[in-house]
Amino acid sequence: MSADLAQLVMQIAQRARAASLVLATASTASKNAALQRLAELLEKKAPDLLDANQRDLTSPTAASLAVAQRDRLTLTEKRLAQLAESVRQVIALPDPVGNVLEDFTRPNGLRLRKVRVPIGVIGIIYEARPNVTVDCAILCLKSGNAAILRGGSESFHTNTALAALVQEALAHAGLPADAVQLIPTTDRAALTSLLKLDTLVHCIIPRGGESLIRFVAQNSTIPVIKHYTGVCFVYVDRAADPAMAEKIVLNAKVSRPGVCNAAEQMLVHRDTAEKFLPQLARALLAQKVQLRCDPASAAILAREKLAFTPATDADYRTEFLDLILAVRLVDSLDAAIATINRDSSAHSDVIVTADEAAAQKFLAGVDSAAVFWNASTRFHDGFEFGLGAEIGISTDRLHARGPMGLNELCSHKWLVTGTGQVRG
Amino acid sequence: MSADLAQLVMQIAQRARAASLVLATASTASKNAALQRLAELLEKKAPDLLDANQRDLTSPTAASLAVAQRDRLTLTEKRLAQLAESVRQVIALPDPVGNVLEDFTRPNGLRLRKVRVPIGVIGIIYEARPNVTVDCAILCLKSGNAAILRGGSESFHTNTALAALVQEALAHAGLPADAVQLIPTTDRAALTSLLKLDTLVHCIIPRGGESLIRFVAQNSTIPVIKHYTGVCFVYVDRAADPAMAEKIVLNAKVSRPGVCNAAEQMLVHRDTAEKFLPQLARALLAQKVQLRCDPASAAILAREKLAFTPATDADYRTEFLDLILAVRLVDSLDAAIATINRDSSAHSDVIVTADEAAAQKFLAGVDSAAVFWNASTRFHDGFEFGLGAEIGISTDRLHARGPMGLNELCSHKWLVTGTGQVRG
Repeated sequence: MSADLAQLVMQIAQRARAASLVLATASTASKNAALQRLAELLEKKAPDLLDANQRDLTSPTAASLAVAQRDRLTLTEKRLAQLAESVRQVIALPDPVGNVLEDFTRPNGLRLRKVRVPIGVIGIIYEARPNVTVDCAILCLKSGNAAILRGGSESFHTNTALAALVQEALAHAGLPADAVQLIPTTDRAALTSLLKLDTLVHCIIPRGGESLIRFVAQNSTIPVIKHYTGVCFVYVDRAADPAMAEKIVLNAKVSRPGVCNAAEQMLVHRDTAEKFLPQLARALLAQKVQLRCDPASAAILAREKLAFTPATDADYRTEFLDLILAVRLVDSLDAAIATINRDSSAHSDVIVTADEAAAQKFLAGVDSAAVFWNASTRFHDGFEFGLGAEIGISTDRLHARGPMGLNELCSHKWLVTGTGQVRG
Repeated sequence: MSADLAQLVMQIAQRARAASLVLATASTASKNAALQRLAELLEKKAPDLLDANQRDLTSPTAASLAVAQRDRLTLTEKRLAQLAESVRQVIALPDPVGNVLEDFTRPNGLRLRKVRVPIGVIGIIYEARPNVTVDCAILCLKSGNAAILRGGSESFHTNTALAALVQEALAHAGLPADAVQLIPTTDRAALTSLLKLDTLVHCIIPRGGESLIRFVAQNSTIPVIKHYTGVCFVYVDRAADPAMAEKIVLNAKVSRPGVCNAAEQMLVHRDTAEKFLPQLARALLAQKVQLRCDPASAAILAREKLAFTPATDADYRTEFLDLILAVRLVDSLDAAIATINRDSSAHSDVIVTADEAAAQKFLAGVDSAAVFWNASTRFHDGFEFGLGAEIGISTDRLHARGPMGLNELCSHKWLVTGTGQVRG
């Protein structure tokens, strides 16, 4: 059984590799034609998709889902229309394949061009959100990559129906349907097999909770691009403008607490805390944010009779994904930088300050994917950065760091043209 | 014992991480000062280094080394002078850290800059060549990365002496000596521990034979950049200029058969083989190259009474690293491209042709790190590409593909500066 499964996954990967070589030199027009057809199918076949989604929603697995999970699993006419719209947005994005990144001629006359090419075959491992099936398929397709999708069991029927439409759209445009394949089982043995096929699959992108991502990273011999968590910091410097700090902290914490670029941690410079922390705390408490305080910040809040909870040590490195903020005082800018480099997940960290020298030191010294000066962590996002759609945000340091758009779904190759040069 | 070893490796990695944060913002002048001091020390301390090298050369391990391995292990006054010279060459290379890769302002006024930063902590795993200790240390240092070196047991004393000089040079320049550390044991358990420290070490670069690289790739939860083998092809097209083809094939095969960018495989278009293969074969045989032929090419050579060996199926995917060349005929350009995409190691592949359309199709269709038109595979090298020194050549598709110079030893981060913007 397990040998059969391994064989099945191997065949999927072999077909994906073959399709990837066709897709690598496919024209922008043909890729866009497939995307156009997919957008139409998502609307035209909405009833079938909603039926498939109902099968997932009424399955025994679905009964145990939390409200938020169930919501993420649910498709509606409106969500399908949004999905079709997201496909049309990707059509409008420029095709990254073939971009010339470098072009120079050596003294011996050799011309070297470094050109953008697709990575090849990308495996996407994700959980219950069926829209990921379409999001990832279209980004891989536009960037010329073949995709192997392995979604969660909760959305299996929905994913299967969506993947079938993607294949129909590919075939309609004369492209290989094998360019996007869904693994037709959610048996974990199939995933484990996939993660070892490093001669056929060139990159794995896991999207989901930390435990899924750790499983993938620990079991893959294929390079993985990922982010584990977003433990994001806002540091309110001694020279912060109080009104700006309040606005940024509130936005970073409460505008969407469940996402990776929400703030989880606040550091306040000791020199400004006496005067300014009570005001900040009042604003956060008014938004129902629970404050988990170190002894120094707790003392200030206690004096002002403001609510707080004493922080545990673990709170300082926790991604709460909820209306909770850990609060600490720091003695200096250097202490803030050192604290962030030790405790943050190197995702998105902010300094609020009017002191340019402090800001420059913070920007240089904080070792995170995106470092902000006087702006909210919530901007760390491919759309907000102007990159167009994104397949995720990487806190890895290799290949991509920060939002991964179409360019980041590409590798490059060197094209060397000569007139018979040989090496002496 | 093994727990002690794991603890030791963890402490090395923690010190490396701390040093990497200092090195990330170190000035070019201080990094160059350390390099300058190292170059001097390599000359001044030559007697001590040669003593350490003698200890390795006279150890029981060394007795079982092959001649070529023993040669690679051996230091001489001249080799030390060359090593010092290579350090001075790295001083002359531009510092990649801080380069602004992108700089733009969003409609909401946020300014985004993507700047080059060091990767962080890099683990280098290598075999018997002690010069790798210095090569890797200096490239990591110049690019602002902390390095953890784990060399082979054969060169343990030499590596220890060289790493001590690097640390002395770092301290001399006021930089943390922990920025370059050698793991003080060649126990494989220490390597296995290192490969799991993915919160402290950001990248592993293995340099050595395929089995070492496979061990690293299979046991590491840290991203690995590598190349396994160089199974490089020369395709002699129907429209090849015979004299150019002969010159390129000879250079690619015989100028240095033991390196990864040497050719191992030749494909000849059937239309030209009758006329041209005998001439090519004579030139190769004159250089003592053994030809391992498919039946079609063998028939032609047999008719001309030229020596050949029938190829096995494995020969078509073998990195011989010797004066051996596998030879096949192909029916078409498409067949050549498909054969290369199936059988090459995607390192360096060449078309020799005067037909520009054929060349463009080959350059677009061959999915390798470097694709050559009318030039030798032997140019696939950081120096030859004009990138300065290189830490290796990557056949991976993520982060780096092809020669890895100082730029490829860097990641980037996003610096976002605002005036209080929050996300709506």
